[in-house]
Amino acid sequence: MGKIGGIAVFLPKFTNNMEFIINIKDSKSSARTGTIKTDHGIIETPIFMPVGTLGGVKAVHTQHLEENVKAQIILGNTYHLYLRPGIEVLEAAGGLHKFNGWDKPILTDSGGFQVFSLNHRRKIKPDEGVWFQSHIDGSHHLFSPEKVMDIQRSIGADIIMAFDECTPYPCEYSYAKNSMRITHQWLERCCRRFDETEGKYAYSQTLFPIVQGSVYKDLRRESAEFTASMNREGNAIGGVSVGEPTELMYEMTEICCSILPEDKPRYLMGVGTPANIIECMAMGVDMFDCVMPTRNGRNGMLFTWNGMLNMRNEKWKFDFSPLDENSDLFADQKYSKAFLRHLYTANEMLGPMIGSLHNLHFYLDLVKTARKKIEEGAFATWKDEILPMISRKL
Amino acid sequence: MGKIGGIAVFLPKFTNNMEFIINIKDSKSSARTGTIKTDHGIIETPIFMPVGTLGGVKAVHTQHLEENVKAQIILGNTYHLYLRPGIEVLEAAGGLHKFNGWDKPILTDSGGFQVFSLNHRRKIKPDEGVWFQSHIDGSHHLFSPEKVMDIQRSIGADIIMAFDECTPYPCEYSYAKNSMRITHQWLERCCRRFDETEGKYAYSQTLFPIVQGSVYKDLRRESAEFTASMNREGNAIGGVSVGEPTELMYEMTEICCSILPEDKPRYLMGVGTPANIIECMAMGVDMFDCVMPTRNGRNGMLFTWNGMLNMRNEKWKFDFSPLDENSDLFADQKYSKAFLRHLYTANEMLGPMIGSLHNLHFYLDLVKTARKKIEEGAFATWKDEILPMISRKL
Repeated sequence: MGKIGGIAVFLPKFTNNMEFIINIKDSKSSARTGTIKTDHGIIETPIFMPVGTLGGVKAVHTQHLEENVKAQIILGNTYHLYLRPGIEVLEAAGGLHKFNGWDKPILTDSGGFQVFSLNHRRKIKPDEGVWFQSHIDGSHHLFSPEKVMDIQRSIGADIIMAFDECTPYPCEYSYAKNSMRITHQWLERCCRRFDETEGKYAYSQTLFPIVQGSVYKDLRRESAEFTASMNREGNAIGGVSVGEPTELMYEMTEICCSILPEDKPRYLMGVGTPANIIECMAMGVDMFDCVMPTRNGRNGMLFTWNGMLNMRNEKWKFDFSPLDENSDLFADQKYSKAFLRHLYTANEMLGPMIGSLHNLHFYLDLVKTARKKIEEGAFATWKDEILPMISRKL
Repeated sequence: MGKIGGIAVFLPKFTNNMEFIINIKDSKSSARTGTIKTDHGIIETPIFMPVGTLGGVKAVHTQHLEENVKAQIILGNTYHLYLRPGIEVLEAAGGLHKFNGWDKPILTDSGGFQVFSLNHRRKIKPDEGVWFQSHIDGSHHLFSPEKVMDIQRSIGADIIMAFDECTPYPCEYSYAKNSMRITHQWLERCCRRFDETEGKYAYSQTLFPIVQGSVYKDLRRESAEFTASMNREGNAIGGVSVGEPTELMYEMTEICCSILPEDKPRYLMGVGTPANIIECMAMGVDMFDCVMPTRNGRNGMLFTWNGMLNMRNEKWKFDFSPLDENSDLFADQKYSKAFLRHLYTANEMLGPMIGSLHNLHFYLDLVKTARKKIEEGAFATWKDEILPMISRKL
């Protein structure tokens, strides 16, 4: 541990010492529960990781993340944090944990997804990396595999991601294949740089590579095999949930999970709806992240055990029942559907605040319940029961 | 009490039973501490009342208002609540307390200030009231003294305000005089309607009249005398803090306080900065409200015991010290100035959320400390000491 009783303790620097233990394997699917140990504490898997793009989870107090949502790990975004507040500030703070006051584990994505989303504002030079223009001020920057490793060393997340090209959907086979090869070359460069360097703070970091290959089975197999061969402490599946049909996403995830080693955590990037998460958990995915609970929460779309609620709907106008009477979240008991609808329709910030908090609480409750069901040997039955419920539109 | 152990108890309806007790009078000023008893609990005075225009305090969770800010009473706005969610919804909910989940006292302003702010979208017909167009959809509405009483009966605040014309600044003497006369006529109509009607829910309400008279001493005296003669359970001073110089605001407040009865709470509407509040407390004001802590909090302007901080300022970029290390608020200890600056500059909602919470916590801490100092006989010394401190710009 890098912290004991709130006081920073200067321990020797590690480059690598994450531990993953599988606790229980489901007999009827590939689902399993496990524990990831990091220097900022443990993570129970399967886990959902709230997205804190700029270092803070949008519209949610850190206190609520800790005490109510019971988040065990949050995400930061390399591209966004590099631009604002900037690496100089993060280094001066002693890393992102010290900067944002989140003492538990953090994972940073590599910025690949954001940089490639810039479309006309970026240029790929495989031997170098990607030149891009900031979405804030148009300034020019280069992200190379090496630079992205260095930036993530400075941000100081516990789990950092390789710099990849996240292909869009649809994507031509030839483009996907070439892009995957570049991603693999970059992965080798990422691993080399990561292994040559050390964490900048008094705790260890670990690097996860990312499988690409778009919606092509052979490419996914090739990429998963290459990724597995790098023998890192965990592996990620990227390039899914970018607009492809859900069935294709499941198919690609299943292929990747069948190849990526069972004894290491598998992280499915950017997925998804509650149903997506349960389905992919059954394929052996251990870690999930998605902006959906916070983004939809800001827009008035709430996830519950009974289905999805559009809180802007007229139908809640006179519904004074609590948001969710079975929930242990204060906001679910305290606020009525009618009040929440009023806040959204009047564009009051409190609406998005309650919605984001509620959705994250639900997502973490979902994965916690799933872990319990796996441990009880009741996962398959539970999955069949709840999938139609949580997917309903109310 | 209308509620015992969270269960609504149907008691006989009262029209009027607020109680006000003066606890300690300061020997060197007109400041005093007191207790207002309402059916939704007690209010310790002097008090600051956070503004919840649309029923919720902007960007602040009700849980934090209760547990951290320790607000004792919040404000709602008749104009806004009448338009959204509308009286039908509020009545169906069983009043605003049931609708927004705030079980403690609520005060509603009468909508006079908002309606008169509509400028070209309203027309005064003294015998009737004011015709105005909704700022939301342009629909036409009439607010008469009687209607505003009826609406506030439906909203169900513990303390409701008379329907007045809030004159702007600057304001011609002749306009101010005529306007004041209309306000007085309307006040008589408000009192009549209020006394003829009963609360719609299982608790009592009380009506406060409002002194007007712009910045003219003779008008303020006349208005304060007329207001006092109505013999209500509390009195308010309106038409201040509308752009006039601070010294004029103090002068008008002092005149009003000297005439309004000492044994009833005095409420200074829409005031103000921490310094304004302390100064007017010394004149005998017991209740304050203002959007300043929440509005400035949203904009990055923070009030502290050491002065005012503009959190967007470059100077905080590398300041990793907590927002306020002497505060008992989790947000003040948890978040650094640098992180908060980052949230504001990146337009993250969490910035305004933290700023609003911090400022309200400070305002309530300010009035709590003032009460303590009055009780200790140390108010005058404390006032002289802290005024230069809290007014500094850092």
